[in-house]
Amino acid sequence: MQIDLNCDMGESFGIYQAGVDEELMPLISSANIACGFHSGDPQSIDRTVALALKHGVAIGAHPGHLDLRGFGRRPIQVLPDEIEADVIYQVGALAGFARSHGAELVHVKVHGALYNQAVQEPELSKAIARGIARVDRDLVMVGLATSPVMREAAKVEGLRFAGEAFADRVYNPDGTLQSRRIAGSVLTDAEQAARQSLSIARDHMLTAYDGSQVELTAETLCLHGDNPSAVENALAIRRVFEEAGVELRRLT
Amino acid sequence: MQIDLNCDMGESFGIYQAGVDEELMPLISSANIACGFHSGDPQSIDRTVALALKHGVAIGAHPGHLDLRGFGRRPIQVLPDEIEADVIYQVGALAGFARSHGAELVHVKVHGALYNQAVQEPELSKAIARGIARVDRDLVMVGLATSPVMREAAKVEGLRFAGEAFADRVYNPDGTLQSRRIAGSVLTDAEQAARQSLSIARDHMLTAYDGSQVELTAETLCLHGDNPSAVENALAIRRVFEEAGVELRRLT
Amino acid sequence: MQIDLNCDMGESFGIYQAGVDEELMPLISSANIACGFHSGDPQSIDRTVALALKHGVAIGAHPGHLDLRGFGRRPIQVLPDEIEADVIYQVGALAGFARSHGAELVHVKVHGALYNQAVQEPELSKAIARGIARVDRDLVMVGLATSPVMREAAKVEGLRFAGEAFADRVYNPDGTLQSRRIAGSVLTDAEQAARQSLSIARDHMLTAYDGSQVELTAETLCLHGDNPSAVENALAIRRVFEEAGVELRRLT
Amino acid sequence: MQIDLNCDMGESFGIYQAGVDEELMPLISSANIACGFHSGDPQSIDRTVALALKHGVAIGAHPGHLDLRGFGRRPIQVLPDEIEADVIYQVGALAGFARSHGAELVHVKVHGALYNQAVQEPELSKAIARGIARVDRDLVMVGLATSPVMREAAKVEGLRFAGEAFADRVYNPDGTLQSRRIAGSVLTDAEQAARQSLSIARDHMLTAYDGSQVELTAETLCLHGDNPSAVENALAIRRVFEEAGVELRRLT
Repeated sequence: MQIDLNCDMGESFGIYQAGVDEELMPLISSANIACGFHSGDPQSIDRTVALALKHGVAIGAHPGHLDLRGFGRRPIQVLPDEIEADVIYQVGALAGFARSHGAELVHVKVHGALYNQAVQEPELSKAIARGIARVDRDLVMVGLATSPVMREAAKVEGLRFAGEAFADRVYNPDGTLQSRRIAGSVLTDAEQAARQSLSIARDHMLTAYDGSQVELTAETLCLHGDNPSAVENALAIRRVFEEAGVELRRLT
Repeated sequence: MQIDLNCDMGESFGIYQAGVDEELMPLISSANIACGFHSGDPQSIDRTVALALKHGVAIGAHPGHLDLRGFGRRPIQVLPDEIEADVIYQVGALAGFARSHGAELVHVKVHGALYNQAVQEPELSKAIARGIARVDRDLVMVGLATSPVMREAAKVEGLRFAGEAFADRVYNPDGTLQSRRIAGSVLTDAEQAARQSLSIARDHMLTAYDGSQVELTAETLCLHGDNPSAVENALAIRRVFEEAGVELRRLT
Repeated sequence: MQIDLNCDMGESFGIYQAGVDEELMPLISSANIACGFHSGDPQSIDRTVALALKHGVAIGAHPGHLDLRGFGRRPIQVLPDEIEADVIYQVGALAGFARSHGAELVHVKVHGALYNQAVQEPELSKAIARGIARVDRDLVMVGLATSPVMREAAKVEGLRFAGEAFADRVYNPDGTLQSRRIAGSVLTDAEQAARQSLSIARDHMLTAYDGSQVELTAETLCLHGDNPSAVENALAIRRVFEEAGVELRRLT
Repeated sequence: MQIDLNCDMGESFGIYQAGVDEELMPLISSANIACGFHSGDPQSIDRTVALALKHGVAIGAHPGHLDLRGFGRRPIQVLPDEIEADVIYQVGALAGFARSHGAELVHVKVHGALYNQAVQEPELSKAIARGIARVDRDLVMVGLATSPVMREAAKVEGLRFAGEAFADRVYNPDGTLQSRRIAGSVLTDAEQAARQSLSIARDHMLTAYDGSQVELTAETLCLHGDNPSAVENALAIRRVFEEAGVELRRLT
């Protein structure tokens, strides 16, 4: 039993600090590093790549909408050609830093509103996959495990797809995520997050908000770095994984 | 007798058009492509890389200050670490597009105020060279032929340096460029630009504004794309080069 | 018979030029001046306000989405509170320039995607109206004459509303604009634009693409400055207006 | 004995928080509110204006360089015309929010690198003063008490000037501020800051780092909100002021 544990990282900008990267990095196996469009700047990328490598964490690009003001959380209606080029740009920039540290990018996972839009829009998902593939066909595309749209887009472009499930988000019975606007949709109780994580990793199953069971196969588990109990969650997840014999494994 | 002919390209942004890339690209041997900080956007980069390759023109990154408003022409006092990271980011992004078109970056030349600051400031030049070298030690660093600062910075970082002279700029007797604020400092007469270009390429010599001779060895000749007579200049230069047996040769 | 003739102005940015403001300004009665979010910068605003006043043209603010890259044409899902604050900011900035030239803002018309979104979304229209009213209750809110949503929003906030019709856009039978993605949706034939303008101004009526008649009452007529035949259109409109005794009148 | 106590406020941006505005606002008499160029966004301005008014604190605009990435701390070589327009824009935007809350701007103080550049460059100081005066001649221009350049610029433009001294910065014997790059140049000991504040307010005198006395007349005292001991400093200053009979008085 093996699963990857990924977290968004490098979301500071200029003088502004976000996240607790120093504390979380030792606890995860893959870092999705912000590329400067929704957050992050060249120096934060440099620092975050170095931090990931120090802890043996796999490096991925985390491209988002060009929207610092909205942290990439506001849906923007972009044309597929725009987003394809935006992905190449951001992945290329990240790859430059990876290379400068003697490392290579492993995966790409899009951020925030772009992720949510891509889950719904096949043309957008395909544009993202095309952008990734144009930079490097060996990159893994990470996307929602319970949605066929991103998976299909990766396939069309010949990319390996890694399905992602969320350690700290409440699910609807149809496998989609409960909206963040609903109170309690983000799990801040570490034991609950750990329980959900174990169920995903070991049983390929999770319990939706109404008690119904959702089947899913996830290769990577996402932990939100901006969750106030992020570190606690990560520690609890690692503990239950160790007890149950689930091994953390980087994407390859 | 051989020399490279380079020109800044891809300086459009969003709906805003700049330059006459379609007309100039067939006439040059190296394109310095704007990377999105002082001008350019992901789609303009994509188009410009494709256009360069179509005409067999060598692709270079043209990183600048993060200053769309000022087109990278306003000196900004940046720390060496900032600019080193900015260079990695921009060169990495460009390299992603080059790779996506099955090509490779050949050179890096910094833009505008950053270029002028680097000519004066060894620490800045070294930070630029370090940024380039961290992405790829095989990249050629293009800088002012008549200034030792950039040349030395490239050497320290183990980069090949290509000295650049200007086809359409008036020089001071000490080999520096006459300020753009002085009327007539940019040559718009094609014959004059062609004469200066030939003198540089064949005789390793140019005539400063006061008639004195400046010796220089330039591997690449810069033509300004925003010069209203850019196309005319390029045509005149190519004509005199052909007559004199000077061959255009891409940097390698 | 009187109507206002408005045009978007001041859409240059930094070194990038857009529009033919110098030629169009003498031909219109109201200028919607870009505020720096989708285009425009402080210096372009300063120049454009001065140009409008020189020609006796009424000054309005033209706020848009924070999206230079997309020229404010990409729909962004913003919260009402965000857009209310964005409107205050942009209208305030414009008002500062108006005041600095001894003038006052007359109207506010939102730009591009924000305009189109507001036509559909009552909460967004109300947020825009609230932003305008918070700066100055005497400002006129300009919006689509054939849509009740913006009109109602203005009313709720106690703002005078001026309905706008388009001189150079093809209409659907229900009074909405034909999508720009349909070929021919922007009228480039000056005679056709003039005919539609006269029909709107004199007969309160226009002919939709299918020949059906649409009734509407418009106080202001919009001419697109980025239409390649903008100047020709303006001249033709003024000629037919003069012949028919329709007077250009600024909003008040 | 009276003096104003000012602090930079509203320096958050999007999701990024900066400063402890809620805690500091009750302790000061004037707020310099970031205008969105170096930090701040329309919603932060709205909130900060409301917070200032709730505590009876005078509102001022705090315009800076267009440099979110560098927080306005990187000197940019701008032309006087650029900065004049930038000041009008930012002051106008702030004035829009003040008006929307039924209040008026009292003062303008430029930020960071722009402040430091203006202290040295008469043309820049005059451009700033011109920008302020163009929006409203009744605005007070706040600048360094110990430098004649800004004072003179205000005078030339007919603006009232309020000289500022720093509660928590170490001074050089010539009345300039010790560089922030020197360790200890920012006072984090509240008692020391309070002592310096009282000496400035009561004795029109302060002690430079070498023990020499600097005479100065300051109408307003600046407290840095990003000083980790900002709240402690403010409390200590208020205590010693109360004991000594120094009254806090807003600029007028």
